[in-house]
Amino acid sequence: MKTSNHSSTPMIGVFDSGFGGLTVLRALIERLPRANFAFVGDTARLPYGSKSRRTIARYAAQSAQFLVREQGAEYLVIACNTASALALDAIQEAVPVPVLGVIEPGATAARQASKTNDVLVIATNATVQSEAYTAACQAQGLRALEKACPLLVPLVEEGWTDHPVTEEVIDIYLNELRAEAWARGLNPDTLVLGCTHYPLLRPLIERAVRPGVKVIDSAEATAQVAAQIFNGRVTGPVPATEQTEQTEIRCFATDSVEKFERLGSRFLGRPVGKVELLDLGG
Amino acid sequence: MKTSNHSSTPMIGVFDSGFGGLTVLRALIERLPRANFAFVGDTARLPYGSKSRRTIARYAAQSAQFLVREQGAEYLVIACNTASALALDAIQEAVPVPVLGVIEPGATAARQASKTNDVLVIATNATVQSEAYTAACQAQGLRALEKACPLLVPLVEEGWTDHPVTEEVIDIYLNELRAEAWARGLNPDTLVLGCTHYPLLRPLIERAVRPGVKVIDSAEATAQVAAQIFNGRVTGPVPATEQTEQTEIRCFATDSVEKFERLGSRFLGRPVGKVELLDLGG
Repeated sequence: MKTSNHSSTPMIGVFDSGFGGLTVLRALIERLPRANFAFVGDTARLPYGSKSRRTIARYAAQSAQFLVREQGAEYLVIACNTASALALDAIQEAVPVPVLGVIEPGATAARQASKTNDVLVIATNATVQSEAYTAACQAQGLRALEKACPLLVPLVEEGWTDHPVTEEVIDIYLNELRAEAWARGLNPDTLVLGCTHYPLLRPLIERAVRPGVKVIDSAEATAQVAAQIFNGRVTGPVPATEQTEQTEIRCFATDSVEKFERLGSRFLGRPVGKVELLDLGG
Repeated sequence: MKTSNHSSTPMIGVFDSGFGGLTVLRALIERLPRANFAFVGDTARLPYGSKSRRTIARYAAQSAQFLVREQGAEYLVIACNTASALALDAIQEAVPVPVLGVIEPGATAARQASKTNDVLVIATNATVQSEAYTAACQAQGLRALEKACPLLVPLVEEGWTDHPVTEEVIDIYLNELRAEAWARGLNPDTLVLGCTHYPLLRPLIERAVRPGVKVIDSAEATAQVAAQIFNGRVTGPVPATEQTEQTEIRCFATDSVEKFERLGSRFLGRPVGKVELLDLGG
């Protein structure tokens, strides 16, 4: 039983520019406890948020090809809003396996949550400039207003996830966003976290939004969609005989393996273990 | 006269991971008005501050070789504290021209400014971890205490150079640094700005330090050393007949040319003009 079960265990490749995507991996592991995972954090070239579409597409395709060709990934989850927004087509062209980004699932979850059909999105500069969330929300019949919050990633990486300065920065960004929404006649009741670093700020963000506004985490939403796709194959309760088996998780970083190991556990919610250094050239 | 003068005009290559090094270029232009300059901002791969020595050395050597081989630079100024701290030897090995970093000039200026011989240094993570300022200060008979301030670069790039949040962050960092200095029995009277972004925060930093503490800008200090090196060849007052001549400045960026043009002028103190896209591979 165990052998045949193991042979049907899919390898899912997860990619991010850094380790923020580990929040997506965490949600995937919870929903797909019997899948194996390989994760690439392209830490040598982060952040993608300030780079151009051309550069991001080139970088992301390299990581995707490594996951498929060398790690045997049968599915790819792009756990990076910027790469999903700017390079999903380029990644899909670069590999022969299905590719799932975080934008569509985020927009779908926003539609399910919103009653007014007006939603707010906070993300990095590059994600906002791509207007990918606006397009994905429009396709769902929603009006979206996006805002870049470039200080939030550095604040998370500084470890100030429960700090008065971070509270103040979030208040400033959300006040500006609300003022803009009001000026455009929108009545938003949903806020999408369009960056995989932001789930670590969720408690502060939930305190900063008005009562009744729902906060949507794209990482959670993406894991839900992935679980539906792989349904029957790897989801469902793990049989008691396999409960002690560990999901196999291999983590690769293109730089700063030590930093990845140290900070990564905050995002993954458990130790990331040994991280392997990956040279993608460049 | 003009022809012979022109043929003796040196081409100085200036390199940074982003556009912060334009504060060094600005100081160089003021002191060497008759030199020509080529500047490379490796914006596709910034920030260097969170990357490893190996990666930084590889990236910096590529830019240095471009400046020497393709732009004809006869001298190189590494206008990036992280690259100066971690890769000066690697850069010097990669090119056959003299290379000047920002660390040594910063330490020399600190020695000239300090009476207690105890100095504080604020910089990026990678610069601090390299302990390059500590070593350079020790060589000058100074005791140095360094602190990483990773939020200051994003705050400058967000344009919050005169913002209450930035004031608060600077206060937090400097209070932590002072407490550490006190615990170690130091009596610092000098603060070195060990990152080329920090000169844009100089007014806020000067307000935050105690009275009597001198603030040293490595960009300024480096330009002074460069002026001494090139003395007689390109310094001194520009003859009236040449006053209308423009110093030739060519700027290259490996990504986000538009962002470079937009933000670069803040650092250079005048429009950067047309920025050329440079592909270093990778």
